[in-house]
This record gives sequence, structure tokens and C-alpha cells, in this order.
Amino acid sequence: MSSEFELIRQCFSQGYPHSADTLVAVGDDASIVLPPAGHLLVQSLDTQVADVHFPATAPANLIAQRALRCAVSDLAAMGATPQAFLLGLTLPHNQPAWLEDFASGLRACAHDCGIALIGGDTTKGRELVVSVTVQGWVADQPRLLRASAKPGDDIWVSGVIGESALALPQILKRPDWSDGLAQSYYFPKPRLELGQALLDLANSAMDISDGLLQDARHIANASAIAIQLEGESIPTAVALGHPSWMTCLSGGDDYELLFTASPSQRAAITALSAKLDLPLSRIGQCIEGEPDVTLLLDGKPVTPAAGGYQHF
Amino acid sequence: MSSEFELIRQCFSQGYPHSADTLVAVGDDASIVLPPAGHLLVQSLDTQVADVHFPATAPANLIAQRALRCAVSDLAAMGATPQAFLLGLTLPHNQPAWLEDFASGLRACAHDCGIALIGGDTTKGRELVVSVTVQGWVADQPRLLRASAKPGDDIWVSGVIGESALALPQILKRPDWSDGLAQSYYFPKPRLELGQALLDLANSAMDISDGLLQDARHIANASAIAIQLEGESIPTAVALGHPSWMTCLSGGDDYELLFTASPSQRAAITALSAKLDLPLSRIGQCIEGEPDVTLLLDGKPVTPAAGGYQHF
Repeated sequence: MSSEFELIRQCFSQGYPHSADTLVAVGDDASIVLPPAGHLLVQSLDTQVADVHFPATAPANLIAQRALRCAVSDLAAMGATPQAFLLGLTLPHNQPAWLEDFASGLRACAHDCGIALIGGDTTKGRELVVSVTVQGWVADQPRLLRASAKPGDDIWVSGVIGESALALPQILKRPDWSDGLAQSYYFPKPRLELGQALLDLANSAMDISDGLLQDARHIANASAIAIQLEGESIPTAVALGHPSWMTCLSGGDDYELLFTASPSQRAAITALSAKLDLPLSRIGQCIEGEPDVTLLLDGKPVTPAAGGYQHF
Repeated sequence: MSSEFELIRQCFSQGYPHSADTLVAVGDDASIVLPPAGHLLVQSLDTQVADVHFPATAPANLIAQRALRCAVSDLAAMGATPQAFLLGLTLPHNQPAWLEDFASGLRACAHDCGIALIGGDTTKGRELVVSVTVQGWVADQPRLLRASAKPGDDIWVSGVIGESALALPQILKRPDWSDGLAQSYYFPKPRLELGQALLDLANSAMDISDGLLQDARHIANASAIAIQLEGESIPTAVALGHPSWMTCLSGGDDYELLFTASPSQRAAITALSAKLDLPLSRIGQCIEGEPDVTLLLDGKPVTPAAGGYQHF
């Protein structure tokens, strides 16, 4: 066998979680999965590029962790239960030690998220590109869509916003820094349990990748509603008034869930927060009006200093 | 809205085939598909990199055609009916005309293959990378696996082998050449009808991407059989004896189907060839023995001058 196939086989065929739904995994022309009866297939593709989405010199296991976690976060935002992923890996080199380190991070993350590796393609290129297609199941019908927020809904966010954005300047200087605030950058936590619980509680949900303020616009536009955010209520990594406060709102890479729910669900959501030991903060409301996001401080609109991340 | 989202929305949300199974397509955190009852989900991820899998300066519509066709070919090899694809596109520039040309090729190919676009991710990078996850359905149970060839099986190939390999040197000089032999390179035909018909006729199948001789080894290894190929029977783009004959066998990029079937199916396969108006050539047999591929000429083993394409 050629070195290409051996390399791939060793790193991407063993040690990943088992999926009972998977009949054929890595190694044939295609994988084959048996969808559980009465369930819908939820899928997302997420691409990360060296020196765009992570430092090229970051440890390979951290690159793998971040790439897979960010992709799985999209399943969380739909309330899906992860099933499997396919990996597209473009490599600028053929370094077995790097690949083994990458695979070790990928395996650890796959076990954390309960997701099997069923296929992929490893190719040569000038720069490192990691493209992950993740999938999972939801029962019955589509829920938590960006388009299903309603006027009158509260808007909520999980966890704390801005840690990754605050860590990023240091990570760019020291790409192997992975504790403290850098944990949020390399090990974002897909809010899978939260998303699944929200299927019965929330109207709309999404994960925050490009910044709270920019991403809230997606819900506003898709649902044709106006969103008012109360700056004082947003759980940020630094306190209101700190010079980096706005960076927390616009920086991105949070992978917390932003969701809307009827005010009648407040008690249930507060109870869920306690059950999951995860802060869930009510940060504003959806109202009728032109699709827009307004940030309020002391009840008055403020103009954000910067938007979220844009690729081009 | 930012330019990033507008750009993507315009090019990747309209004009693609409709999929009745798709409940939520491009635009939310994830797509949602309703699997048809009693069917299995068949999936493959295929990545193509500029100047590795195609010339970086090739017309964008040809790059799109080739990338999607090569991916769909994996579905053909499993006998699957295409349903949808997700597109990971990494771009070294932000040129609307290039992106529109790419999307025009992608749309045309999607209609040819009957496959809907349901999701994806467009990112910036230093070089062009196209990563496509395709999926489709098969009924009942996995078939046509690489591991299910049997000793005594005939081995067959569809179409003509080697056209892409012969065209490649000229394409590298003139990346916009897309007729004649170059058609096979930019517009490989996923043998979908053939693959679906083979579900009831063949034991094993795969598509030829890395070269007939190298790819035949995958079936030999997976099925633990020896494969003997009769050089005189292989339908090549140049005749046996031509200096480029061996290039046809080892060059790759054919995307024809290589399959094995019981000799009792010969008449049915010949009838299928007529029905599909597609040459199906019996080129050898599977026998008991150490997994290996032997090329015979005049009944005697010959040593191929070169193996198939290796990435590293």
C-alpha cells in the first residue's frame, strides 16, 4: 500500500466513537448510514483555514479540537444529537508526527461530543485547511430555526461572551497557549444538552461565531423582527465600562447559543440553567419592526464601534 | 448585510435543483433533510486543491464542474441516487465575476446530476480549495462494497480508460481547453444509471480516480482476492503498443466504474451496456490468492512502469 493510504488509515480509522447507525465507515467509496425511523438529518459544513481561523503554528491537536468543536456547535444550535462527521484535510506537508497529534485531538474531541468519523479526504495543498461536515438527528420536525423568532420573545444567551475574542491577541503571539481564556478559543463547548432541551422551550436559536451583535442580525433578518439588546444584561468576560467590553460583543468565536423564547418560558429556562449548571442570561427582547439589532445602554441606543468578523 | 453573506447568498442559494427531501437548506445553522423511509444514507467527501487536482488558472465553471462530478462519482460507485451536497469553498480572492462563473458551472452540473445544494461554508485562504460532501440514498442494504468481490467474479470496467490522463499535459499548458479529450478531465460522467443497475448484478464496485491499476488494488485488498487483468481486453484511449498505453492504465481521473460480478451475469451486463449505450468491458477475473493485481499480456504477467497517483 502507498504511504498516502497508510497515513490516512492509521490516523482516521481507529479509536473514534462507535456509531450504531453507521453500516459502512471510512474505507469504501462512500459511507453508509441507517437513519433512525422518524428522525430528521441535520447537517453543517464548517471550514477552517490556517492563519484565518487559527494560527498555522498552533499545536495540531488544538487545531483539530477547535475545528471539530466549532462544527458540532452548529448541531447544538439546531437541538440535534450528533451522529457522525466527514473530514476534509488539506496538508502542506507530510509529517507523521503532526498528523498523529492532529488525530489525537480529533479523537479526544469526537469522544467528548459523541460523534463518529465516517469518511473524508486527505489531500496535499500549500496551506492547512480543515473542512468538517457534521451531522446528527432531531425528532419530528425542524425547530429552533433562525426564522422562527416571534415579536415578544425574550432573547437569551448561554455562558459568557467575549473570552475567545479577548484571548486572541495573546494566542496570535503564543499559539500554544491553551489554558485560561485560551480554553474558550481552542476548546469551545458545543452546547448540545442545552440545544436539545431548548427544542421544547425556545422558538429560535443559533450559535455565536462571528460576534453577538452581528449574529443577532441573522435572527432579526430571518424572522423579520427588531432585536433590542440590553447592554447591562449581557454576560461579558469584562465588565461594562472596561475598554474591551465592546470587543466581547463583536469579537466572535464564542460558540455560545443565542436563542429566543416566549416570556412564559422564563421559569423553565431558569430551571434549565440550574440543571445544566450553565448561566443562561436574558439579554433583551424581540419586537415588531424593521429587521435590526439595537444595543441599549441605560435604555438608550448606542452605536457599536465595530461589527463582527467578515471574511472578505 | 455584509458583503460576505451577500456574495454567498447570491451564488449559492438560487437556481439549484429542488430536493423534495430537504426541509431546510442553505441559510440556517444547519440543513435539515427528511430521509425517505427504508433507505440508507450514502455519503462521500471529496477535496480538490488548485494546482494539485486542477490548474489554478482553469475557468471557474470548469473547476466547479470537475469538483462536483468527481464527488458524485463516489455515489455512482455505491449505486446511490444523489440527493444533496454541501460545499466548502476556500478562496484566495474576492472576485464576484469568478464566483459567479464558478456558481454557473456548479448549477449546471447540479442539474445534470440531479443533486441539490443544501449547505456549505465559504472562507478566505491563500489558495483555492473546493471540498464537496455529496449524499444520496440506496434502498434496503449496503451493496457494491469493495470488500464483497468473490473469487471467480469477472472484473469489468465502463467506458474508455485513459482519456483524462492523456489530456492532462495539454490541459496544464492550456487550462481553458475543455473539448476533445479534455472533456473527460473537466466533465467526468458519474455513472449513476450504471451504478444503480449494478445493485442487482454486481458484487463489488468502485470508481477509478487514481488509476485503474492502483484502484483495482483496493478491491483486491478489501476482498482478500487476487485480480488478474488482461491487458488486451482493457478499453484504452490509445491502442495496446502505443507509447502512452500504460499511462492510460495508471494515470487516473477516469471516473469510470470498475466492478466485479459473477460470470452468470455476463448476458445481463451485456444487455445493460446496450440499454445504457455505454461500453462495459470484461477485463479480467478475481481468483483466490494473496491480495494483488497482476496485469497480463498474452497471458504473461508484466510489470507496470508506474503506479497510480499518490498525494504525498
